[in-house]
Amino acid sequence: MSASFPEGLLMSNNFEKALRFLNEVEKLKMVYRQNMVVDGSRYENSAEHSWHIALMAIVLSDFSDNKNIDLLRVIKMLLIHDIVEIDTGDIFLYDVAANQNKLENESESAKRIFGLLPEEIRDEFLALWNEFEKRETPDALFAAALDGMQPLMNHYASQGKGIERHNIKSSQVISKKKYIEQASKTMWEYSLEIIKKMEALGYIKSA
Amino acid sequence: MSASFPEGLLMSNNFEKALRFLNEVEKLKMVYRQNMVVDGSRYENSAEHSWHIALMAIVLSDFSDNKNIDLLRVIKMLLIHDIVEIDTGDIFLYDVAANQNKLENESESAKRIFGLLPEEIRDEFLALWNEFEKRETPDALFAAALDGMQPLMNHYASQGKGIERHNIKSSQVISKKKYIEQASKTMWEYSLEIIKKMEALGYIKSA
Repeated sequence: MSASFPEGLLMSNNFEKALRFLNEVEKLKMVYRQNMVVDGSRYENSAEHSWHIALMAIVLSDFSDNKNIDLLRVIKMLLIHDIVEIDTGDIFLYDVAANQNKLENESESAKRIFGLLPEEIRDEFLALWNEFEKRETPDALFAAALDGMQPLMNHYASQGKGIERHNIKSSQVISKKKYIEQASKTMWEYSLEIIKKMEALGYIKSA
Repeated sequence: MSASFPEGLLMSNNFEKALRFLNEVEKLKMVYRQNMVVDGSRYENSAEHSWHIALMAIVLSDFSDNKNIDLLRVIKMLLIHDIVEIDTGDIFLYDVAANQNKLENESESAKRIFGLLPEEIRDEFLALWNEFEKRETPDALFAAALDGMQPLMNHYASQGKGIERHNIKSSQVISKKKYIEQASKTMWEYSLEIIKKMEALGYIKSA
């Protein structure tokens, strides 16, 4: 894969750095997830997933239980949170073995890819990415809750295509997603209802 | 295509409305553009394109010549600007006939799709979408400049795959994109350099 950068087109050092990064992240459009787009024609990729949850942040911001969230910071986290997958691939949430070295590998990837940027933005993105991963601040919790709820909405809308074959149990889904409740009771209640429906329809397994 | 909404899972009227909209916009992932992702494996879709330019807004905000831009407003415009294409499809910039009723058709689509949202966000999105289309305010000009420059970067990186067959002339590209200069002299200078390189490489035609 060659997202080649046009050498000799460079205007200023920081502009050049920004463009190198923006060319590099083209590759996120080719990082595929386990679920499909809703017509079942192909797997969803991490770039369009990131678009969807950034839009969700705007539309659902009223449903954050903590009213002091900074929407711009939440959106920045969501737009960059999966960029590390360019090096690591998308690690399936329910794959225990693959998740063992996830954070370590993704940290290396964050350093490499955000490291292409001018210093100030590099440091901002590294800090936002770490904050998102830790899920401790209100902004990170809300962002992570959106990232956790979108796949459920997609699995339901795409009738379980792509994920059905993994035979996930509803208890696994609940265990992995229950942190949503810390960000939004409404979003968690809704997530539980979707999980119940998906179990009834056979997209995921019981208990 | 059935992005069916789980009836009977509804928590509150505004939450329900927001989710209907968020389910509807899954379809933007299946609106394909004329250019390809950089490995040439498939056409780029409007959802991942929107992700890319929202990220560009953050990374390139220092290069807006007008220093009074509101980054959150710019990002909102970019995340929603192509949603109308769910009804109209992506209209190729250089297709004169197809562009004749573009604004009228897209306005109808904006009313229908943003109309799914709670009133307050519906009105905000309609206003932002109209502002973006008019390209008069600093926020809209900068947002539109990013939307104009990203395809050039992509065409170059993907070696013209997808767009080459249209035999576009460099003069057409310059004419359609020269508004970028109003937002950022640096971005326009860079855009002109890419256009020149693409012409030399045969991705677009001379004059």
